[in-house]
Amino acid sequence: MARVVVDVMPKPEILDPQGQAVANALPRLGFDGVTTVRQGKHFELEVADDVDDATLAKIAETFLANPVIEDWVVRRVDA
Amino acid sequence: MARVVVDVMPKPEILDPQGQAVANALPRLGFDGVTTVRQGKHFELEVADDVDDATLAKIAETFLANPVIEDWVVRRVDA
Repeated sequence: MARVVVDVMPKPEILDPQGQAVANALPRLGFDGVTTVRQGKHFELEVADDVDDATLAKIAETFLANPVIEDWVVRRVDA
Repeated sequence: MARVVVDVMPKPEILDPQGQAVANALPRLGFDGVTTVRQGKHFELEVADDVDDATLAKIAETFLANPVIEDWVVRRVDA
């Protein structure tokens, strides 16, 4: 059993209203020094050992991310 | 300017319908071997160099995660 993490983020040119809202709220609430906040999705998968990287890439591209507006990174982590 | 990543995940005892939906859909669509999918949030922050770890921990706990139902990890990454 392997653990796989997929991080999905809006592409840089895509607006990110959720991240923007956090970034705007922080100074009002006394936290200065945070210039940018971008919010994306974080998936943790448990997969059988025989699932290869090509399959993982396909799963990420097809089900976890929207390739039109999002970038994503797939990485295996130690269990 | 430092880059900080905060990953927020539902606690293990909390149901995760979004992750469940992905996990259930995969075998139907021809991808076997994925046993668990959990979905959380991934934040990328750019912060000034004088923002210390205690402040980052406070920001994550207060604004990015809901401590009642979520776990979170704060880490600095190389720019």
